[in-house]
Amino acid sequence: MSHELGHVVTEWVVLFTEDDPLVLDSGETIAPVEVAFETYGTLNAAASNAVFICHALTGDAHAAGHHGDPERPGWWDVMIGPGKAVDTDRFFVVTPNLLGGCQGTTGPSSVNPATGEPYGLRFPLFTVADLVRVHRRLARHLGIARLAAAMGGSLGGMQVLQWAIDHPDDLHAGIMVCATARLTAQNIAFSAVAREAIMRDEHFHDGDYYAKGERPEVGLTIARMMAHITYLSEESMREKFGRRIQDALTPRFRFGVDFEVESYLAHQGEAFLKRFDANSYLYLTRVMDYFDPFGDLPVAIARLRDVTTRFLVLSFDTDWRFDTAHSRDVVRVLSSAHVAVTSREIASPYGHDSFLLDLPEYLATVAAFLDRVAQEVGGRAS
Amino acid sequence: MSHELGHVVTEWVVLFTEDDPLVLDSGETIAPVEVAFETYGTLNAAASNAVFICHALTGDAHAAGHHGDPERPGWWDVMIGPGKAVDTDRFFVVTPNLLGGCQGTTGPSSVNPATGEPYGLRFPLFTVADLVRVHRRLARHLGIARLAAAMGGSLGGMQVLQWAIDHPDDLHAGIMVCATARLTAQNIAFSAVAREAIMRDEHFHDGDYYAKGERPEVGLTIARMMAHITYLSEESMREKFGRRIQDALTPRFRFGVDFEVESYLAHQGEAFLKRFDANSYLYLTRVMDYFDPFGDLPVAIARLRDVTTRFLVLSFDTDWRFDTAHSRDVVRVLSSAHVAVTSREIASPYGHDSFLLDLPEYLATVAAFLDRVAQEVGGRAS
Repeated sequence: MSHELGHVVTEWVVLFTEDDPLVLDSGETIAPVEVAFETYGTLNAAASNAVFICHALTGDAHAAGHHGDPERPGWWDVMIGPGKAVDTDRFFVVTPNLLGGCQGTTGPSSVNPATGEPYGLRFPLFTVADLVRVHRRLARHLGIARLAAAMGGSLGGMQVLQWAIDHPDDLHAGIMVCATARLTAQNIAFSAVAREAIMRDEHFHDGDYYAKGERPEVGLTIARMMAHITYLSEESMREKFGRRIQDALTPRFRFGVDFEVESYLAHQGEAFLKRFDANSYLYLTRVMDYFDPFGDLPVAIARLRDVTTRFLVLSFDTDWRFDTAHSRDVVRVLSSAHVAVTSREIASPYGHDSFLLDLPEYLATVAAFLDRVAQEVGGRAS
Repeated sequence: MSHELGHVVTEWVVLFTEDDPLVLDSGETIAPVEVAFETYGTLNAAASNAVFICHALTGDAHAAGHHGDPERPGWWDVMIGPGKAVDTDRFFVVTPNLLGGCQGTTGPSSVNPATGEPYGLRFPLFTVADLVRVHRRLARHLGIARLAAAMGGSLGGMQVLQWAIDHPDDLHAGIMVCATARLTAQNIAFSAVAREAIMRDEHFHDGDYYAKGERPEVGLTIARMMAHITYLSEESMREKFGRRIQDALTPRFRFGVDFEVESYLAHQGEAFLKRFDANSYLYLTRVMDYFDPFGDLPVAIARLRDVTTRFLVLSFDTDWRFDTAHSRDVVRVLSSAHVAVTSREIASPYGHDSFLLDLPEYLATVAAFLDRVAQEVGGRAS
């Protein structure tokens, strides 16, 4: 039996049309909305074994398997596959690119049919609840009324929480990894500076850079470099780079790359340009800033009383982007509304990035939780 | 008796000339070197009561008193003045702008006499030891052979440490506040991204922006905004801004400033443009990255055995730019070389910025230490 998914493909579907547009929290509408997604495994006859993967800020639909090069698997290939924590021998896995993204799903770089030009900043601002609206439509399109589980890390986990609150019968289980119910001032500050770097770039042109054949590359590079500092823990940076000099034993005393950590950041910034759109970065960071489902706590708790979802809430002890205090807040509110929740802080030196990594305790915890879910909902016999 | 210094003035002196240039660690030379400085209080007859203030990354010579507007005192006015921790009734205080700076002392924005144009990036890279060379020359110019104390926060404290190592008879006492003997990979990473923001700005022109009548304002603004995140603690940001909306009760859902923390950062970025030069930012952050006086530990300890300086090493419990672990490393090495050192971690919610603030325990600790110094060196009778 293979332990790899092998070759997978991305599919596309138009989920909202001008006759049936996506109506956002703000009242604004978007149409058409096309969604890029992948599926792995097989939906059982009862359509009860679906696991929905919500990606984080810069993820995409290609979560597992490969598109031709086995050396370059999807972003959560350590998590998803035959015999893995999200076992595709038992579960049918659905993973879309987010609304507002730039990897196949309608977003600010898509053409606005009203003008024939890319939306740019005319793309309406949306909320995490709007992301969930699109997810639900995709699930329905695939014949799934109730999910065995929705899961995600960081912004992905925020979608899971919103989904359970807004549609209390949709999710049998929810897995939130290093997520939050509310960004702190410091969290917002990092994203705000990243956005300023993009929006103040001379090549931004108020978001209408597509037609100019140029992009705010400097701003997007700086945004990504800064974000990477927050994704790694201090100790993992210390271990990974220390004060070592790139390709040399002694410092060269210059402003360009000299320390290994500088080379790493420069590479991350560079690679990001190839795959991400600056406007999508603005929209998908801003949706996180405004996320605050527990803002009106009595209302939130009243709504949570109807929630039947069983939660697994995980955090990592060295994550300082969304540290365990964020997860504890989520657990406290869920518990106070008598929602079933299991939580664990996993020891990992790798900071926020841990949710993407092959960490045995982490993967085993998810596997055990989903094993019980499979028994409850009836997984597919392998 | 007044508790304020009142009106003070900046002075200038040429300390190195073409006949007697500043010879740097690298072997390169700079001439002339002019230094802007201020002094407060009176030097006693034995010239034994001088306290030398070393400023941090963006400080200047104007540490205390005011230049006309009593509402806008110098950057360390809480620390320095009659009856204050650095008591100008007892001590003669000297505070210069750093080599490489942009507030009166020779730096990359100064005219290179060899070309008649500003140095820009042709200004040689220098070390913390080079900063100390200039400080010593200023002290000698003022008739001071041995200082009662040298003191500073952050980069200022790094100069104090280097000074004691390189010139073991110069300092009776040294006060290092939230400083370090070595930046971590994360510390370097933040500065690296800031420099990239400046150097990739289209208006940077490889550092020769002066003649073009423009400056890398976007890059410098982004650098400053990012730095401010690291100067505040998470809790002080939470307390100061939380998730409050600027001038409104509810979010406006937009990309521009909406949260108070965004307004704060934008203001800090803006204000910084008025007073700082982008090239100076490059040089003074890079000098910190390369600082590593304990790099060759046996050599450092052997040299420290000659040091007669008595140290006070302070840190703040919420500082995450240079946390207490940095100070502990300094204390451990000093102690292992039998250098007299007192250390304390001060409780303060304000993060790295604490060293600039009116915190009673902090100021009282410095006052008590300097009181003993005054008794030892013979302060001036007030």
